Amino acid sequence: MIAVLKQGTTTAQTQHLVAWLKNMNLDVHISEGQHVTVLGLIGDTSRVDMDLLKSLDMVETVKRVSEPFKQANRKFHPKDTIIEIGDIRIGGGYFTIIAGPCSVESEEQIIEVAQAVKASGAHILRGGAFKPRTSPYAFQGMKGAGIELLLKARAATGLPIVTEIMNISTLDLFADVDIIQVGARNMQNFDLLKELGKTQKPILLKRGLANTLQELLMSAEYIMSEGNENIILCERGIRTFETYTRNTLDLSAVTALHELSHLPVVVDPSHATGKAKMVSPMACAATAAGADGIMIEVHNNPSCALCDGAQSLTPQQFDEVCHRVRKIREAIV
Amino acid sequence: MIAVLKQGTTTAQTQHLVAWLKNMNLDVHISEGQHVTVLGLIGDTSRVDMDLLKSLDMVETVKRVSEPFKQANRKFHPKDTIIEIGDIRIGGGYFTIIAGPCSVESEEQIIEVAQAVKASGAHILRGGAFKPRTSPYAFQGMKGAGIELLLKARAATGLPIVTEIMNISTLDLFADVDIIQVGARNMQNFDLLKELGKTQKPILLKRGLANTLQELLMSAEYIMSEGNENIILCERGIRTFETYTRNTLDLSAVTALHELSHLPVVVDPSHATGKAKMVSPMACAATAAGADGIMIEVHNNPSCALCDGAQSLTPQQFDEVCHRVRKIREAIV
Amino acid sequence: MIAVLKQGTTTAQTQHLVAWLKNMNLDVHISEGQHVTVLGLIGDTSRVDMDLLKSLDMVETVKRVSEPFKQANRKFHPKDTIIEIGDIRIGGGYFTIIAGPCSVESEEQIIEVAQAVKASGAHILRGGAFKPRTSPYAFQGMKGAGIELLLKARAATGLPIVTEIMNISTLDLFADVDIIQVGARNMQNFDLLKELGKTQKPILLKRGLANTLQELLMSAEYIMSEGNENIILCERGIRTFETYTRNTLDLSAVTALHELSHLPVVVDPSHATGKAKMVSPMACAATAAGADGIMIEVHNNPSCALCDGAQSLTPQQFDEVCHRVRKIREAIV
Amino acid sequence: MIAVLKQGTTTAQTQHLVAWLKNMNLDVHISEGQHVTVLGLIGDTSRVDMDLLKSLDMVETVKRVSEPFKQANRKFHPKDTIIEIGDIRIGGGYFTIIAGPCSVESEEQIIEVAQAVKASGAHILRGGAFKPRTSPYAFQGMKGAGIELLLKARAATGLPIVTEIMNISTLDLFADVDIIQVGARNMQNFDLLKELGKTQKPILLKRGLANTLQELLMSAEYIMSEGNENIILCERGIRTFETYTRNTLDLSAVTALHELSHLPVVVDPSHATGKAKMVSPMACAATAAGADGIMIEVHNNPSCALCDGAQSLTPQQFDEVCHRVRKIREAIV
Repeated sequence: MIAVLKQGTTTAQTQHLVAWLKNMNLDVHISEGQHVTVLGLIGDTSRVDMDLLKSLDMVETVKRVSEPFKQANRKFHPKDTIIEIGDIRIGGGYFTIIAGPCSVESEEQIIEVAQAVKASGAHILRGGAFKPRTSPYAFQGMKGAGIELLLKARAATGLPIVTEIMNISTLDLFADVDIIQVGARNMQNFDLLKELGKTQKPILLKRGLANTLQELLMSAEYIMSEGNENIILCERGIRTFETYTRNTLDLSAVTALHELSHLPVVVDPSHATGKAKMVSPMACAATAAGADGIMIEVHNNPSCALCDGAQSLTPQQFDEVCHRVRKIREAIV
Repeated sequence: MIAVLKQGTTTAQTQHLVAWLKNMNLDVHISEGQHVTVLGLIGDTSRVDMDLLKSLDMVETVKRVSEPFKQANRKFHPKDTIIEIGDIRIGGGYFTIIAGPCSVESEEQIIEVAQAVKASGAHILRGGAFKPRTSPYAFQGMKGAGIELLLKARAATGLPIVTEIMNISTLDLFADVDIIQVGARNMQNFDLLKELGKTQKPILLKRGLANTLQELLMSAEYIMSEGNENIILCERGIRTFETYTRNTLDLSAVTALHELSHLPVVVDPSHATGKAKMVSPMACAATAAGADGIMIEVHNNPSCALCDGAQSLTPQQFDEVCHRVRKIREAIV
Repeated sequence: MIAVLKQGTTTAQTQHLVAWLKNMNLDVHISEGQHVTVLGLIGDTSRVDMDLLKSLDMVETVKRVSEPFKQANRKFHPKDTIIEIGDIRIGGGYFTIIAGPCSVESEEQIIEVAQAVKASGAHILRGGAFKPRTSPYAFQGMKGAGIELLLKARAATGLPIVTEIMNISTLDLFADVDIIQVGARNMQNFDLLKELGKTQKPILLKRGLANTLQELLMSAEYIMSEGNENIILCERGIRTFETYTRNTLDLSAVTALHELSHLPVVVDPSHATGKAKMVSPMACAATAAGADGIMIEVHNNPSCALCDGAQSLTPQQFDEVCHRVRKIREAIV
Repeated sequence: MIAVLKQGTTTAQTQHLVAWLKNMNLDVHISEGQHVTVLGLIGDTSRVDMDLLKSLDMVETVKRVSEPFKQANRKFHPKDTIIEIGDIRIGGGYFTIIAGPCSVESEEQIIEVAQAVKASGAHILRGGAFKPRTSPYAFQGMKGAGIELLLKARAATGLPIVTEIMNISTLDLFADVDIIQVGARNMQNFDLLKELGKTQKPILLKRGLANTLQELLMSAEYIMSEGNENIILCERGIRTFETYTRNTLDLSAVTALHELSHLPVVVDPSHATGKAKMVSPMACAATAAGADGIMIEVHNNPSCALCDGAQSLTPQQFDEVCHRVRKIREAIV
């Protein structure tokens, strides 16, 4: 960590600050420049309160030199983390396809979709039981009953399941769920993260709409700091000024997260773009960018012609995506 | 609500869609343009799933014409909401100053600050007991003990208190708190909002870092839809590309929220800018923009010279801000 | 185009507005809703001043239903545009690799790089002669002399050349250049666009750092409206809150621009990420997303070990990228 | 400037880099940390190519410690710059009101508006002759003829005039103009900036839609580096995810620019918000924030009832704004 002191800081003030920093078990190197003095803080700076330091009268700016996350940091853990769920492996060279409907709607629906996506090569079934919705008047999901149906679909197909938790008070309902998803809007729900850190469940942690990669990794660190290292990071689009797509899918995040961390990274092109037509090209692009997996919305609603063409793909469209993605995967490995 | 159909949509498809919409108790007006057909949906569209509609194959785009929030909407409730806490009034022409330390640290600290800010004219005491921190290694607040100290400061000064809730499981600890704050990171923690809607406590609802004004009002609507109409909106800066300030304070939000809603709007310049020097000019600007109040961080830490100059103001700096703000308030009313 | 009228607009006001609109050769359909009246404007609305309409007292909001660009619009020109430069084709199923150094530095440098990238399969040579730099104190490029060296490199290798124009007064210097690049910062330099529209040179038009896809297409429309239809669009990253990469590469732009327009779309991963290590995965991702080409910075500076590892690739790294990109291209076509 | 070296950098590599830096007349201090080595570069770093340094293999990151702008920097020029135009002063404690129509439309219009705004207390007349428009099909301004009419309005009222230049080839037409405006879209049209730097005309430099404050000051530096120090900075809203207002007015920019630079700062609430109703509160807020002036659109179009209520104010509305702004100005000075 680097602290730049303001022009006009006296020697006495500098010494006062240096003494305070040394008191925190840090070594301090002093570089005197033409207009500024720079302090280099050496040691474990992950516990230094950067905002407090920045707020001191004599300090012009503070810059981190080493990342504030440790357990999620590739520097201290160079080998890829591989998450194991039964026979399924996520990360470390494996490629995982997660698919299923946005919301669980009925037993028939979820089992049909599960069978269809399994037939196309999906490894894990997704389905929303608790649905975070912007409007209180919109459908909020089947909740506990939805999880029951997901478990039936797992029993019918053998596919492990992933579904989203919104509230720690419902954790008991997730006892048999294979992977618990933390949605974008809860990425900084720190109490939820800490509680999930006390379990050993794999956690699919989605990047918040306006969160930096470092903040995503700090949220992973929250979970890991409580003892749970089974985390899958998920890029799902960020909020920008562009309105043509629902969000802007940031595929450079895949490479960046692989550089910074040993945790696996999957990409959700369905939520990122909000447009069915874009799911296939963005799934292909994510695969080519080196993602450890993709997560795609698939529905099966033959009785409701109106739903054909949702951001969700039909099983047939999904099958084509799987085919293309596998060819790209072969091309890059 | 307007749905624009794609070029090439057949009459049969259009009729199918119109029938489906009418089935939802909507009237549908059809305008056939040169290249597109536009459906105007008339009736209560707040329950229409805009994303589902948008996802239909034949639909090019969907645009809301009326706002999706109802109870928070000034159109249906033209008169300003006024929140009452003892003698204090918020909204409807009153101007409220909320002040106090970022975190409650000790009985001595919080009582001293409370007395100081009261002497300068503050109406409400703020202080963090549960602290949302990006890093799991940073101080997380005094929690329940912090609330106890706030209550002591209220007893000592008569100032009502506001403090942040992060987790619905701690609600009992807030039984004697006057105003419960929902922080920016929890603005879309929908389960938390719903539970708070079941109380009658005034809620200070902060805008999320990357949330639109409409989303802020939809989160207010979540609380209101459960029966609690005592909501104070708070602008505290949004995330943009600019890095000189911690966030970008959006003061046009004050005017916009007053146009769209009847709820009071306060501004937090301390968190928005992250710089003590900017608090005074931004507090003045917020007042001139017509805010119903301001919320300012003040600390009192004579024993720790290092803390002088934090984003928090000293009591003396705060006193000057109050003086300036009152003069501006007089100039505009 | 849709105009939503405010609650309380009188019939007389509405009729006044309708008459004004009809005067502009538009048909107007009126839909009366519960709280609002919606006017549907039918006809050629590309010349309607949306801002003026929006500014009228009685108008709540105005929304475009059809795009404001016409010549760049796929709706009116369904077939892909193919740009021809000698034997090279861009767009319409061809895949084009553009490569070369950020700046032209010397005859030896540019010819060596040109030979190297040609050997790896590049179709077009890029190289900056006029360099837009944030700082007036930074190297501004070799200017006219740089173009001369590019022409020599073309003579030596047969590769067509692309280089950036910053100022219409230098247009004569570009007489022998094959493709003229308009940089991100000049995307809305409308006078420059109009002058380039009067030539028949192919134009590589880069998306501005904070410009929407619609604005990019409106800038293409500026060029086309003067008679030059030879435009190649280029996605090169947008400005967001994320600071880990220089910009955020928006690969969904490739799919979106192909939907909206018939013009070819290439991707520049070098400038988007600013990091050499990310160029290869992002070039692969762009290819998988369906881009018509990629544009990559390559340098050849064996005498200056310090430059190894720039955002520019070495010829050997570029060769590997070409190899990977071709394999992906085969996988998706 | 600080350069952080990667873990694993050898001593020989470090020495190579240090020698290269010393060759650029910089002193280099080396701090060896636990995981990283930090080089502190001391001397005139404004000419160091930060991107080049960042791109070296052994360099993890580079951070500026001192600002890259010098002539615009308050550190080297603590006293406020005051721009003089006849009797008018801008900056240094003066408060300047600039007003006029978006576009010059006719002699009658511009003279009427000029007389009206003068009567209300405006000091300078604005009016667009060359109009940057997103669409090639929209009205592009009266151009040279518009400047002629502005000069007539100046003759009639004595108000100095400010109008926008889009293209350096038209500079001769601005010979009698008092202040030349550089619009947001041209803020990084570096060739234009350099040419304007060769004149001694006061320049009103608007912040680009997605440009940081540092970039704005670097653009001022471009003008100043050529010898013209008469620059007025203008905040006019930045592009964010929020769509309710046209742009997000960043009033903390006023305080920040005053900290960083000695140049005067004015605020344009009309373009920032795009909504007439927001102009008055945002003009008041800008004044309270300490701006050196405001710039407001005013039209006078009694014959066209349709235009009442544009983002432009009527003369009467403008008169009220001037009244309010003056009261706030008195309250804060």
